[in-house]
Amino acid sequence: MLTDGHASVLRLINQFGPLSRTELVRQLGISKASMSALASDLIDRGVLAEGEMVYGAGRPSVRLELSANSAFFIGVSLATVPFTLTLTDLRGGVLSTAELTQGATPEAIVEEIAAAIPGLFDGHPQALDRLAGIGLAVPGVVDAATGTCVRSTLLDWRDVPIGDLVAAATGLPAYVENDANALALGQHLFGSLRGCDQGTMIAVGDGIGCGHIINGELHRGARGGAGEIAHATVDPSGLPCQCGKRGCLDTLASVRSIAAAARAAGLDCGLAALDAAANRGERAAIDILHGAGAALGLAIAQIVQSLDPERMVIGMTDGPVTGLFARVVRQTVEANVMPDDHRRLDLTITRLENQAWAIGAASIAAGRGFFRV
Amino acid sequence: MLTDGHASVLRLINQFGPLSRTELVRQLGISKASMSALASDLIDRGVLAEGEMVYGAGRPSVRLELSANSAFFIGVSLATVPFTLTLTDLRGGVLSTAELTQGATPEAIVEEIAAAIPGLFDGHPQALDRLAGIGLAVPGVVDAATGTCVRSTLLDWRDVPIGDLVAAATGLPAYVENDANALALGQHLFGSLRGCDQGTMIAVGDGIGCGHIINGELHRGARGGAGEIAHATVDPSGLPCQCGKRGCLDTLASVRSIAAAARAAGLDCGLAALDAAANRGERAAIDILHGAGAALGLAIAQIVQSLDPERMVIGMTDGPVTGLFARVVRQTVEANVMPDDHRRLDLTITRLENQAWAIGAASIAAGRGFFRV
Repeated sequence: MLTDGHASVLRLINQFGPLSRTELVRQLGISKASMSALASDLIDRGVLAEGEMVYGAGRPSVRLELSANSAFFIGVSLATVPFTLTLTDLRGGVLSTAELTQGATPEAIVEEIAAAIPGLFDGHPQALDRLAGIGLAVPGVVDAATGTCVRSTLLDWRDVPIGDLVAAATGLPAYVENDANALALGQHLFGSLRGCDQGTMIAVGDGIGCGHIINGELHRGARGGAGEIAHATVDPSGLPCQCGKRGCLDTLASVRSIAAAARAAGLDCGLAALDAAANRGERAAIDILHGAGAALGLAIAQIVQSLDPERMVIGMTDGPVTGLFARVVRQTVEANVMPDDHRRLDLTITRLENQAWAIGAASIAAGRGFFRV
Repeated sequence: MLTDGHASVLRLINQFGPLSRTELVRQLGISKASMSALASDLIDRGVLAEGEMVYGAGRPSVRLELSANSAFFIGVSLATVPFTLTLTDLRGGVLSTAELTQGATPEAIVEEIAAAIPGLFDGHPQALDRLAGIGLAVPGVVDAATGTCVRSTLLDWRDVPIGDLVAAATGLPAYVENDANALALGQHLFGSLRGCDQGTMIAVGDGIGCGHIINGELHRGARGGAGEIAHATVDPSGLPCQCGKRGCLDTLASVRSIAAAARAAGLDCGLAALDAAANRGERAAIDILHGAGAALGLAIAQIVQSLDPERMVIGMTDGPVTGLFARVVRQTVEANVMPDDHRRLDLTITRLENQAWAIGAASIAAGRGFFRV
């Protein structure tokens, strides 16, 4: 069982790469003796390994690095079509992936997950002995403490103890998070939010997901509802939303809503085609991408004013990440945060691969078991 | 010097009131021996005292309570007109207050603070020996780690090391926070957000301030800019704001902007008078209060969707807390959070006394020195 002290060493090395004991002492503010004991422990357990030598002012010292192969994790994304599984190592590296057919009930889904797991280890038998846990990314409101999905409109679930079901079927420690939160945690540990203690991840796909890292921790909110910006009202007199309200961000800036607007205007509804049409100067395409980008940009600016993140990453599942939509998002953020503030926000718009969700799910297990995030 | 262990005991007792060692062991998940040592330590230092006996299933036990008179703090509000000072005890109780004339420069203000301090102890000589620190609430962006005011439009400051100046002039440990953050921390430790680990405090006065408590800690953001919702855009095509943008919440829902709209409509500009006019059915008064309440309600709903707080407190410096403005705020929040979500938010609209700012300032010093928040 790792202690908080162990976890803080692992977090730092995961964040900065290999570090010497001296560097760790400086960062953690603990004694050399305590650091030495923690390091020996982690080396004995095989989690850390001694790597390259550092020659500095004093005695040469050796850098400690994470042993990628010391622990493995399974991630399950119920947020993608099809559902996907992935096997990752302690450094977030992907060993294998699989797809699931989508069962109709939680029990059927759990059965398929359990049945698909052995295949992940084809060619990776060493991982089986060091499998440390399984994480699930669920599209809906999740009680992470109990591993229960409180409500998922997409899956048509209410109060499903999915964590317990998966743990019982697989014999593994199972952890559950909201899909966007899992994605944000995965990016925080292994991706574009690595090393960022105040960051927000926004996924723009069929829906819009958002997860906040605050003070280096995933922010779930009082009841697991944090990051539900898809149903933040952008335009009170806007289009009806399936949530029952009007003018939600989801009705304006999701890929699905953009496609619907394009279809209504008689345009090709793919984001790439729409962007090409806008580049040719087609008014309707420009209007649609402008409207969507402005809505998302405004929502982002409101988050900046409220939370002051250091970095925000927008992951797009479709369309060009440098197209008109992305330009309008950037422009609207700049125009709607206080003049002093926009210069300091690091806003990245990037491609979001389908695989990121399952990696995020696996990172939950790595985060709970090893990094304590 | 108190350790984190000491601080966690003090936090719990401050939050729940007197607790027995057994109750503390259960809450903290530490051993009886560790708890016993922490308690003895805190009793020896005079911070805790043994209070009433509890007769339960096992042996009777004694509850430990905070000794209000074991430490005192000075709070300085530079957020109010006039600036105010207060002397508080470890339980947030107010012993005395004073007002300052507003000096023109940071140096003049610091001189006045130092000169006003002795008067706070008239009738409270016992507090002088146990004075533990001074906290400052500054209207602007603050770097809390260095005690520097990075920027304050109201004070016309830029990069003023106000913490160092006050520490040098008074010989006391000095702590600095943004005014709304100080207010939120004061409410979290001693007021309407007590015991709430996910809470937001919004102050509606001449301007609009906002502070978030996230995971039991003050959330300052990456560069001290969290909670700047006054300049979140509510209406992109709205009125010009003094920040350079348009349609900021400040231009719609601050007491100043409501008064300006009332004046422009030829109405009495006090919030109470405006509310009375609305109650008599005067169209213009209804429209003004509706517009302001809807803007604030929308901004609050967006915070709820993004952060999922457990409790939000809106403190009003003026006007009736049950009037039309407050009703529209509540109505708009309900209408603009997801159907499942509004039932779970505890939204309080209350009177904000001028004194709350200086108490918040004092709570910074108590928080840093004793409660580690």
